[in-house]
Amino acid sequence: MDMQTYITDLCRAAKTASASLASASTAKKNAALAAMADALAADRDVILAANARDLATATDNGVPSTMLDRLRLTEARIDGICAALRELIGLADPIGSGERWVRPNGLIISRVRVPMGVVGMIYEARPNVTVDAAALCLKTGNAVVLRGGKEAIETNRALVASMKAALVQVGLDPDVLALVERTEREGVSAMLTARGLLDVVIPRGGAGLIRTVVEQARIPVIETGAGNCHLYVDETADLEMAVRVAINAKASRPSVCNAIETMLVHASVAAKFLPAFAEAAREAGVTLRGCPRTKILLPDAEEATDADWATEYNDYILAVRVVDTLGDAIAHINRYNTGHSEAIITRSREAAARFQREVDAAAVYVNASTRFTDGGEFGFGAEIGISTQKLHARGPMGLTALTTDKYLVDGVGQVR
Amino acid sequence: MDMQTYITDLCRAAKTASASLASASTAKKNAALAAMADALAADRDVILAANARDLATATDNGVPSTMLDRLRLTEARIDGICAALRELIGLADPIGSGERWVRPNGLIISRVRVPMGVVGMIYEARPNVTVDAAALCLKTGNAVVLRGGKEAIETNRALVASMKAALVQVGLDPDVLALVERTEREGVSAMLTARGLLDVVIPRGGAGLIRTVVEQARIPVIETGAGNCHLYVDETADLEMAVRVAINAKASRPSVCNAIETMLVHASVAAKFLPAFAEAAREAGVTLRGCPRTKILLPDAEEATDADWATEYNDYILAVRVVDTLGDAIAHINRYNTGHSEAIITRSREAAARFQREVDAAAVYVNASTRFTDGGEFGFGAEIGISTQKLHARGPMGLTALTTDKYLVDGVGQVR
Repeated sequence: MDMQTYITDLCRAAKTASASLASASTAKKNAALAAMADALAADRDVILAANARDLATATDNGVPSTMLDRLRLTEARIDGICAALRELIGLADPIGSGERWVRPNGLIISRVRVPMGVVGMIYEARPNVTVDAAALCLKTGNAVVLRGGKEAIETNRALVASMKAALVQVGLDPDVLALVERTEREGVSAMLTARGLLDVVIPRGGAGLIRTVVEQARIPVIETGAGNCHLYVDETADLEMAVRVAINAKASRPSVCNAIETMLVHASVAAKFLPAFAEAAREAGVTLRGCPRTKILLPDAEEATDADWATEYNDYILAVRVVDTLGDAIAHINRYNTGHSEAIITRSREAAARFQREVDAAAVYVNASTRFTDGGEFGFGAEIGISTQKLHARGPMGLTALTTDKYLVDGVGQVR
Repeated sequence: MDMQTYITDLCRAAKTASASLASASTAKKNAALAAMADALAADRDVILAANARDLATATDNGVPSTMLDRLRLTEARIDGICAALRELIGLADPIGSGERWVRPNGLIISRVRVPMGVVGMIYEARPNVTVDAAALCLKTGNAVVLRGGKEAIETNRALVASMKAALVQVGLDPDVLALVERTEREGVSAMLTARGLLDVVIPRGGAGLIRTVVEQARIPVIETGAGNCHLYVDETADLEMAVRVAINAKASRPSVCNAIETMLVHASVAAKFLPAFAEAAREAGVTLRGCPRTKILLPDAEEATDADWATEYNDYILAVRVVDTLGDAIAHINRYNTGHSEAIITRSREAAARFQREVDAAAVYVNASTRFTDGGEFGFGAEIGISTQKLHARGPMGLTALTTDKYLVDGVGQVR
């Protein structure tokens, strides 16, 4: 069977099955989540064995260790995945909520929250995303077609088989949860052109994946996760706070999208701030790449080129640039950022307000670390990703980002 | 200058100017709307003269009369356009509204409504859309890049010149309102790939335009206006109501997207209903195209082929199909519809509920005409189009569809 037909069949089966899931009760969906958590816990050995095969293949193929770490499942990680599933049970079900009003001609209009239908997820070799995405889509009444990285295929097969058995057990159609088992690249292209079958595609991964999706998609996309984030140290900043927040924003977890990649420093505080910061950075294992003015103050720093300003290192590296004004800092950020998270450290209410008003990003922080951009930290519970686009959802996407509106209009024969 | 550079420069100027508009007060934006209405009224003769030149060229080029009618401005139409501008002044400004909450760690999070930034509008030769789009974007603090049909270029130049003068008069940067004056097709392609400059593109027009946009866009799109709408006459329908509503839904204005294109009739009422309906259709000037079972009851009807079920006639033509069950009607609709507006005529609460639940469309009607799918009729005031996608906005799009969220996070040095 050619790839296009394979993907079309998979998506069509998911679409057909999605109708029954869309009208499933909250109780039934929650029962399915509980059954999925039970099944994953019970199938732990099978899943770990599959994961071991994936890891062996990946190691043979020379996959880098950071990627191996993301791919690896352990007893503790499976416990964490099951706990997250159970937490989702407690979250409110957005489906069916809404409002209604009556028009002067007597038409009764209800706007109700309904599932998207079928969600396509395209992501890398992270098995936890397989379960997260399946669970979030289930809770919101959506069928899902999962296309994970090929390095995780055995693990994903085991996880999905386990979750499908749980769906059957509670009387839901297992076709609402589909895994693309053929991992050639053409499968991604086929998903991205499945108009009428997939209602939205959410890519979750690095810049290359996002770019492929944006280039090829003929269906709506929610871009997530590209994070070229900045922290700006203003002339009125509490410099001790600035060191502490900047080190946290860079080094607490450099691989994630809400870590900072460039720090901007007002010229009037650079001489005092940068040496102290460089010391803390050294202790945290962070390499600095500086603009010429930074290099004067920190001769040991590497030299930053223009390419650095546009780079998401996802590593213990930080670009540093000295700027003359708040306006210059804002201009730099709006030129290079990816619309994710940006921070200013300042004591000035005016500077804070201007920064929050003029910086174009999903989340704009005053005197706090960018690392808080996260569904859990914002109080939304589970998230399916962090949107860096302005359409539909911006920032951490909770359950409602997986829903849409539908207008129900009731009349007694009204005509226009 | 090549087209790519021309479009990039136009979009970049709009983006630069958009920052000041984004923070303009409601009072200032309303003053601009009033000034625009005044300017258009004052420049009426210049606008009508430009429109006459467009009409002459279009007539010479053999443009069809329905298109000439859309292109034509009159004194009365300009009055209508100005009145719509003034009505917009009274609508609430969504910008700046929002909510805030405090997290256990003391972070204060505000979610505020902000403009998209720069909106690209791609549409056909309808001068009223030029003013509508400019006004709706202005009210929501967005810059806009307008690319209307080439047949209307002289009219659009006159309208935009008039509105730009009004912007200057109230102290707003006229670059927030840009008209693409070079109407070669490459300009559309250049807009659709202007990543980082246009935040969203809204196509407004026929199926061909929408298809071009979906194929070429590398930036977020809101699809609007494709309307293959259906009306289903259920076995328990009030048949007199069914005739009245179906004729209204088809013939009150066949050229618009919320008119129906196919009528489905339950087999048990077809023999009684169809002859009465055919008589009313004849009086309304509507040609019927029937399935084989329809043809038995209405031998004079033309024969419908499979292609008819997928066709948006936008004309005095209606396809008719007899179905055996409500389920068959829903399956037909979900196969062929464009996600716009669908109606059932029924006395059964169960049938109504199932139809509204299972039909996948922006607006699902019970015992009312699909012609009500419209921002004004829903009570939203002005609309920028009717979205047929599920992402971001569905159905009639009012002012909030032109906005997005931004999270402002205020701390005292919190780290994670």
